[in-house]
Amino acid sequence: MATDVSGTRLRLWLRLLAATNEMERALRRRLRTEFGTTLPRFDVMAALDRAPEGLSMSELSRRLMVTNGNTTVLVGALEKDGLVRRSVSAVDRRSFTVELTDAGRESFACMADVHAQWVSELLSGIDAASARELSRGLHHARLAIQASADTVPAARA
Amino acid sequence: MATDVSGTRLRLWLRLLAATNEMERALRRRLRTEFGTTLPRFDVMAALDRAPEGLSMSELSRRLMVTNGNTTVLVGALEKDGLVRRSVSAVDRRSFTVELTDAGRESFACMADVHAQWVSELLSGIDAASARELSRGLHHARLAIQASADTVPAARA
Repeated sequence: MATDVSGTRLRLWLRLLAATNEMERALRRRLRTEFGTTLPRFDVMAALDRAPEGLSMSELSRRLMVTNGNTTVLVGALEKDGLVRRSVSAVDRRSFTVELTDAGRESFACMADVHAQWVSELLSGIDAASARELSRGLHHARLAIQASADTVPAARA
Repeated sequence: MATDVSGTRLRLWLRLLAATNEMERALRRRLRTEFGTTLPRFDVMAALDRAPEGLSMSELSRRLMVTNGNTTVLVGALEKDGLVRRSVSAVDRRSFTVELTDAGRESFACMADVHAQWVSELLSGIDAASARELSRGLHHARLAIQASADTVPAARA
């Protein structure tokens, strides 16, 4: 029985991952064809849009859950395109603060609107009641994962 | 009303993403502390483990949905550690086939077992009936996303 429940949970994780990947694949393709941009670039701009005062490079990496190296490359490319600006941090003069430029903010606002429309279209096969139920289940799952992640020690090999 | 349904769907996507990210964050941390490895490395090995005959670099990138550049770096590091091997493709002599070495296969088998145990632990707050229901909802959502992605043209900016 323990194995059955384990199997059920493993399948839940694989389906969670599959649904997320399916959605990201579709959004990735649309970002590329409609805006000539990538999901990581979009994610960097979204994180900066939510932080009007700017972010340090390490805080930005943390929010994106990528390595500092990748963030540096992404930010460098966005800076070259005039969409973000780096300045020496007022708090710590050895670190940089990154923020969107006005052009970056405008460009992101436009992409975010269209992005929201894509999300709605991509999920249009799910009726409102099912969407609400699935949302609730996912919210509950997230809280359960968070609670386990904080309390259960990592298993030993 | 249309806006309400859009909002419900957007929230569904955010919760799907949040649950997946919560899970990946916990798995990422365990992979690092228990095996000194990263999720991208684990994913490369998982993809190769499912392809006993090996994969071309571009097919491997496609399955991982990352750029060829990232795959090259990951494969190079795994090769240095003796976990994968590259050989000239029998089909196309200009391209490489990547496959797990025996050491890589053993190492992955061990990590995969522990990984499955972590998944089960992390989802232990969800009872079997709820897990099954959520799995069904996610499977349905995935098919709906796939159908929309294939038929609905990308929205215009």
